[in-house]
Amino acid sequence: MTITLAELAQALDARLWGDGSLRVSGAAEPSEAGLAPDGTVRVALAMTPAYAETLSPGGAALLAEGMDPAAYDLAGAVIVPRPRLAMAALTRSLDRAADMAPGVHPTAVIHPSAQIGAGAATGPFVVIGPEVRIGPGARIAAHVSIGAGSVIGADALIHAGVRIGHGVTAGDRLIVQPGAVIGADGFSFVTPDTSGVEEIRRTLGTRGEIRDQHWVRIHSLGGVELGDDVEIGANSTIDRGTIRATSIGSGTKLDNLVHVGHNVQVGRDCLLCGQVGIAGSSQIGDRVVLAGQCGVSDNIRVGDDVIAGGASKIFTNVPAGRVILGAPATRMETQVEINKAIRRLPRMAAQLAELQKTVIRLMQKG
Amino acid sequence: MTITLAELAQALDARLWGDGSLRVSGAAEPSEAGLAPDGTVRVALAMTPAYAETLSPGGAALLAEGMDPAAYDLAGAVIVPRPRLAMAALTRSLDRAADMAPGVHPTAVIHPSAQIGAGAATGPFVVIGPEVRIGPGARIAAHVSIGAGSVIGADALIHAGVRIGHGVTAGDRLIVQPGAVIGADGFSFVTPDTSGVEEIRRTLGTRGEIRDQHWVRIHSLGGVELGDDVEIGANSTIDRGTIRATSIGSGTKLDNLVHVGHNVQVGRDCLLCGQVGIAGSSQIGDRVVLAGQCGVSDNIRVGDDVIAGGASKIFTNVPAGRVILGAPATRMETQVEINKAIRRLPRMAAQLAELQKTVIRLMQKG
Amino acid sequence: MTITLAELAQALDARLWGDGSLRVSGAAEPSEAGLAPDGTVRVALAMTPAYAETLSPGGAALLAEGMDPAAYDLAGAVIVPRPRLAMAALTRSLDRAADMAPGVHPTAVIHPSAQIGAGAATGPFVVIGPEVRIGPGARIAAHVSIGAGSVIGADALIHAGVRIGHGVTAGDRLIVQPGAVIGADGFSFVTPDTSGVEEIRRTLGTRGEIRDQHWVRIHSLGGVELGDDVEIGANSTIDRGTIRATSIGSGTKLDNLVHVGHNVQVGRDCLLCGQVGIAGSSQIGDRVVLAGQCGVSDNIRVGDDVIAGGASKIFTNVPAGRVILGAPATRMETQVEINKAIRRLPRMAAQLAELQKTVIRLMQKG
Repeated sequence: MTITLAELAQALDARLWGDGSLRVSGAAEPSEAGLAPDGTVRVALAMTPAYAETLSPGGAALLAEGMDPAAYDLAGAVIVPRPRLAMAALTRSLDRAADMAPGVHPTAVIHPSAQIGAGAATGPFVVIGPEVRIGPGARIAAHVSIGAGSVIGADALIHAGVRIGHGVTAGDRLIVQPGAVIGADGFSFVTPDTSGVEEIRRTLGTRGEIRDQHWVRIHSLGGVELGDDVEIGANSTIDRGTIRATSIGSGTKLDNLVHVGHNVQVGRDCLLCGQVGIAGSSQIGDRVVLAGQCGVSDNIRVGDDVIAGGASKIFTNVPAGRVILGAPATRMETQVEINKAIRRLPRMAAQLAELQKTVIRLMQKG
Repeated sequence: MTITLAELAQALDARLWGDGSLRVSGAAEPSEAGLAPDGTVRVALAMTPAYAETLSPGGAALLAEGMDPAAYDLAGAVIVPRPRLAMAALTRSLDRAADMAPGVHPTAVIHPSAQIGAGAATGPFVVIGPEVRIGPGARIAAHVSIGAGSVIGADALIHAGVRIGHGVTAGDRLIVQPGAVIGADGFSFVTPDTSGVEEIRRTLGTRGEIRDQHWVRIHSLGGVELGDDVEIGANSTIDRGTIRATSIGSGTKLDNLVHVGHNVQVGRDCLLCGQVGIAGSSQIGDRVVLAGQCGVSDNIRVGDDVIAGGASKIFTNVPAGRVILGAPATRMETQVEINKAIRRLPRMAAQLAELQKTVIRLMQKG
Repeated sequence: MTITLAELAQALDARLWGDGSLRVSGAAEPSEAGLAPDGTVRVALAMTPAYAETLSPGGAALLAEGMDPAAYDLAGAVIVPRPRLAMAALTRSLDRAADMAPGVHPTAVIHPSAQIGAGAATGPFVVIGPEVRIGPGARIAAHVSIGAGSVIGADALIHAGVRIGHGVTAGDRLIVQPGAVIGADGFSFVTPDTSGVEEIRRTLGTRGEIRDQHWVRIHSLGGVELGDDVEIGANSTIDRGTIRATSIGSGTKLDNLVHVGHNVQVGRDCLLCGQVGIAGSSQIGDRVVLAGQCGVSDNIRVGDDVIAGGASKIFTNVPAGRVILGAPATRMETQVEINKAIRRLPRMAAQLAELQKTVIRLMQKG
């Protein structure tokens, strides 16, 4: 399947330069782009001057506003105002990966009381429990299991080996990468008597007599609620709530290996990057971005629009709009100052020792 | 299915107040609890005065010792001495999630030499290898695989997509959340000559000539041994031992995405929270609690009753009973002091610089 | 199956001492080694004098160069120059775990256009897509899925429940532990206007007006390329590239729960230990070792032969050959000094305060 360069410019809402009739079969890095033997072109992604240096003449390229296509001897070009946004449109228009023929694979085990929407595709060895409802246009890949009573909206894309427990509800356009688990039981235990952990939380580190203790399970009766346009990364895990549901707001995206504990409430349009962990009962506002390997303690509130740098560890509430970094996390500007000071700390210790000696000498002299 | 409020009080070993004949169909947060159209009640969990504020009159609630049911206009109440413990009993009595009909699903592939205990349930597409023994009352959900010779005790609950390798043994009442892997090969490699890592461990950071090196695999011949009442979280991984088994003691619970390396020995009644990692050959005592994202280096001993705060990184042995925090982990009281001092560090650096100038002036004057 | 002690010595390229005709059935820790009722021996791994203390007389052992077999009353011994290397050969020769009978299990769903090499074994419920090519001698365990057009080399060992997406290529002798996901979509999103994250990266923490923002997906058109002799740990995830492929060089080994983002290029003969995370588009050189829970920010270059200690967080480029530690990571020697100074920091703060008072008194006196 090909589209013309002019059609591509239109799809990207961008300006065409040169030959709009070039047939585009794909996209490539500049050094690998160009004309194929069948006369189609792979359009080069050259949206900074540095990338454009390796462009070969006669091909087609995506360039950023301000770059001159004539300077690179191109046959055609599409000039985009915001390159990364153009990438989104370009890659969407070229992605044929998740095409699945509609229909239910003969090996799938689907409970008679489940409802599968029109045009949905269900792959081999899929298991769908009683009272499940799947929206129209959903694609459910091989080895997925969906527990009793769960409800998935329209146009979901659920990749291979995903585990969705019972009582999970999701809006439209849900994407779940392979191996993710939605609706495991929460990690919630109690000891018959006050535990060491409870004591330490109260005393901030001091503990009386150590006692034998065993853990009694608090079962998870709540479900998981996902809004519209949610994406869950590969092998990520979202636990169900104890009584109310764990919830993830519309437009929020989770990367791979992210852990969301029981009762957690995540707002809308958040990004939780790779290996982020959020402990039980914490609340994350809207438009929050947690970079890779961030951690959030239990029962914490992170306000709207907070952005946390990589590996920040959040132990206390964070007010809305704050940009934070570090372990424990503080304001990013403060942490940058702290990090500078820490690098100088061994020298500072030496200077302090030297100064102490000098002052002693001064006092003896005085 | 409903129980009466009096029966619930009895199940929780707690005191009944008011109308014991109320029929309870579930539990809910106070704002969502109350009478249903069918005459049953959802009992409100209102075990602190703050939660009780949103109670609606005429319903039933769980209250903590010291709270007055009459003050909230309730029809009935159960007064519990330790609310979280009551939650355990309450949620257990209401959890119907993992109900599976006994018997082997026709799609399951079970080796003829495997023994499945009485009353066990085996879901669709389960694969059970030769010489496996599963205890009575086990529930094994869809897409689980269990390798040759593994032995699982009575009343196990193994959720969808769990991978249990060969030669794994587990006691009774094992719970494994979806996607967990028990018995992957250990991550153990050796270079034909001394590797850079070995050199650095000896010299603490100094390295001679850098050499080409490739990694030769040490195979894992040992298995994994799990005690009674062990729980393993979603997508967690436990590697097999090299020669002896990796082991997890009775009563120990692992949260999601926890990594336990080869040869590790974890004691009894421990809690390993989300995303904790324990590197190869380390030993963790009894009743140890590692909060989320803690890490333990290889070949370390963590004593009994140690509690580590979130994201603590443990590089050296920890004596029994110690409460630790930080990266690298130190006593929690020390770390709290260190964290305070670090926040003041930029100011301290400025004060030191100022003091140096002052002393120089004093010396010049003197 | 047994081998003689003489054959074992030959397999390990090591020196035989004593009775070479002893029949070896396995290996064990010294306290559990010795003669079995059937006349075979389990050879004791006693490669340090401390381990050798619990040897029982009359058995066989692996000893390190310089240890005297006569001192332990052994019947036979194999003297090895580099014990860990001998472990590799020994465990390989005794590992019977992944034996699978060649052939395709009747329940496997294999697309007619897929090519499976000679002698390959395919387990129950395996799903193999169109145009896939699997090399000779591959073993593909239960519940594995492999997407359209992927190419796996000779002698692969793909454990249960592994997810390989479309367009993934791998060299020979690939090992993938259970539950790993190769070829999930990259975590790459863009906002229609400049996002808060982009603004903060430019200003290092300062942000103007907070705007509503939603995330538009950049699709992943690239694949994943794995070299020869690559190993991927349990439940690890490797995302596909946006345009070019994400790649892992020959000889590189990944432990469990490792995250490799889209477009990442990892070199040859690296070790990425448990729970390491590498964010999108970063480049890791050859022979790099990242210890457990290390993190690498996006668009970073880590040079050849870098070694990073446990839980190091790498935010900036690292020159080749450097040994680093800490969060943020610095040279290991520097970090060791910093850690010492940090432990003394509360005391240092007190000393500084004291000194300030002294100097003020001196000034008043002066």
